Amino acid sequence: MSSVTSPASVLISEVGPRDGLQSVSRTMPTDAKRRWISALHAAGLREIEVCSFVPARLLPQMADAAEVVAHALTLPGLTVMALVPNLRGAEAALAAGVHKLTIPVSASAAHSLANVRKTREEMVGEVARIVALRNERAPQVKIEAGISTAFGCTLQGLVPEDEVIRLAEQLVAAGVDETGLSDTTGHANPAQVQRLFRRLGTAVGDHAGAAHLHNTRGLGLANCLAAFEVGVSTFDASLGGLGGCPYAPGASGNVVTEDLVFMFEAMGVKTGVDLDKLIAAREPLKAGLPGEPLYGMTPDAGVPKGFAQGAVHG
Amino acid sequence: MSSVTSPASVLISEVGPRDGLQSVSRTMPTDAKRRWISALHAAGLREIEVCSFVPARLLPQMADAAEVVAHALTLPGLTVMALVPNLRGAEAALAAGVHKLTIPVSASAAHSLANVRKTREEMVGEVARIVALRNERAPQVKIEAGISTAFGCTLQGLVPEDEVIRLAEQLVAAGVDETGLSDTTGHANPAQVQRLFRRLGTAVGDHAGAAHLHNTRGLGLANCLAAFEVGVSTFDASLGGLGGCPYAPGASGNVVTEDLVFMFEAMGVKTGVDLDKLIAAREPLKAGLPGEPLYGMTPDAGVPKGFAQGAVHG
Repeated sequence: MSSVTSPASVLISEVGPRDGLQSVSRTMPTDAKRRWISALHAAGLREIEVCSFVPARLLPQMADAAEVVAHALTLPGLTVMALVPNLRGAEAALAAGVHKLTIPVSASAAHSLANVRKTREEMVGEVARIVALRNERAPQVKIEAGISTAFGCTLQGLVPEDEVIRLAEQLVAAGVDETGLSDTTGHANPAQVQRLFRRLGTAVGDHAGAAHLHNTRGLGLANCLAAFEVGVSTFDASLGGLGGCPYAPGASGNVVTEDLVFMFEAMGVKTGVDLDKLIAAREPLKAGLPGEPLYGMTPDAGVPKGFAQGAVHG
Repeated sequence: MSSVTSPASVLISEVGPRDGLQSVSRTMPTDAKRRWISALHAAGLREIEVCSFVPARLLPQMADAAEVVAHALTLPGLTVMALVPNLRGAEAALAAGVHKLTIPVSASAAHSLANVRKTREEMVGEVARIVALRNERAPQVKIEAGISTAFGCTLQGLVPEDEVIRLAEQLVAAGVDETGLSDTTGHANPAQVQRLFRRLGTAVGDHAGAAHLHNTRGLGLANCLAAFEVGVSTFDASLGGLGGCPYAPGASGNVVTEDLVFMFEAMGVKTGVDLDKLIAAREPLKAGLPGEPLYGMTPDAGVPKGFAQGAVHG
């Protein structure tokens, strides 16, 4: 399907400590967050979205964001990422010392207004202000824009692809380093994923960023495979599938890190992640949120007999 | 990844009434089977594996195989398929009037001995005898061999690809019309699926048959996508993911028909299946096996806003 060479290795960007924990009504204690993030790092994950900088009255689960960042910064080789929805959040995140900011920007006009009470154009302006702040205070920090509802929206349904690509171009013009595409509501299908990531690469070149895909209708890994085939090399995923607005019992919202790592490693694509240690990283998550449902099939089924991580099987 | 043109339409071969029902310890009443198969047909499925012809003392769930076939034969346009493990089963299936036989043949030497107490070579001989019987009694009936454990085996681990392909060639030489590949134990990954189906096509040409893929480690749809991309056009799946040796709670063994149809239709690939009616076909299944766990995310999440079946979205 693709004329692009698929990458020989991929970066798995773990979003559980942010996307997962803010989807759960309970708050994981700070010490448990530290232990969990350390276990994720020990498994070989080298980019983790550790928190979001948002008002504690809106998301009390993230009230300890600066403390969590301080711990994550002690882990060697880790890119410490935080979500910021606006300039105020970016100020706090930069003060905490993160390596990378991620800013969600809706491609859907309806979702943008409903979610952040800003038009898309106003959000591009906010992104430009965050870029200016970064340039002034911490020019080494990377900024990613994650285009949410890029594949469809529960409010308006279809989101025109031209609008997604135009928004990506505007964000790159505003100074972000990378712009990724997010299937916020589980609308994406593999053909659409390939079409839109191809167009993104054509439009913004090396500024094309991560695929953030959901498993709402079971297509999470198929959509990741589709993106990989057109050259995408960074994939967001969540340990145990935590977060990502699961609709259905037994259904995870986010792509499950364990299954995604298994898929790539079984294909002979390097992730740098040790699958056994990754599965072990479920324990501090369970300890920090007792009883919380976790998803993923590889942890229950185990790796198949004859599976040697990193080997091409044939 | 592929130089092959993907098909514009696919055939979904529903295996639930056989593969699903024989995995459940309870027996669905015959009337309930009839209602369920009628509902599957009403949804647009045009090939259904309705039963297996095996001794009732081994699989009491299939004791009414001939009655089930008699009903299925009344449904217009339906290819009525039955699994037969040996010549005796084939005699009974041909007497019942099926349109198509499917014969499982293990690629794993260890699995073949453990499962049917025959070597692979002995099974090829049995297949040749079934072909001779078919040629004599019902030459219009099609015969498919399903190569099980083609991607790996829980007993012996890796299964050499050369042995899989040699077995496929032997089966075609023995006279089968189609030879498919089955991921019996959930070992397959997308790269392997593409490699092996490409080799199968090179080796046996138009005799290459269905992809029977499992969701044991969550890769079911990704593996189907991979097979589709190298030109596979028939996919086995099971309504509600029934059967297929699920290992894990919340994990289906077989690929879920509902999610598979959603994936293809969302991609603009015609399945001929009406997704609403397909989801409605879960009701007679539930009525016939009260309390049995069903899988699938599309039935719970619903189709996304803006989804128009058969349309290419973009």
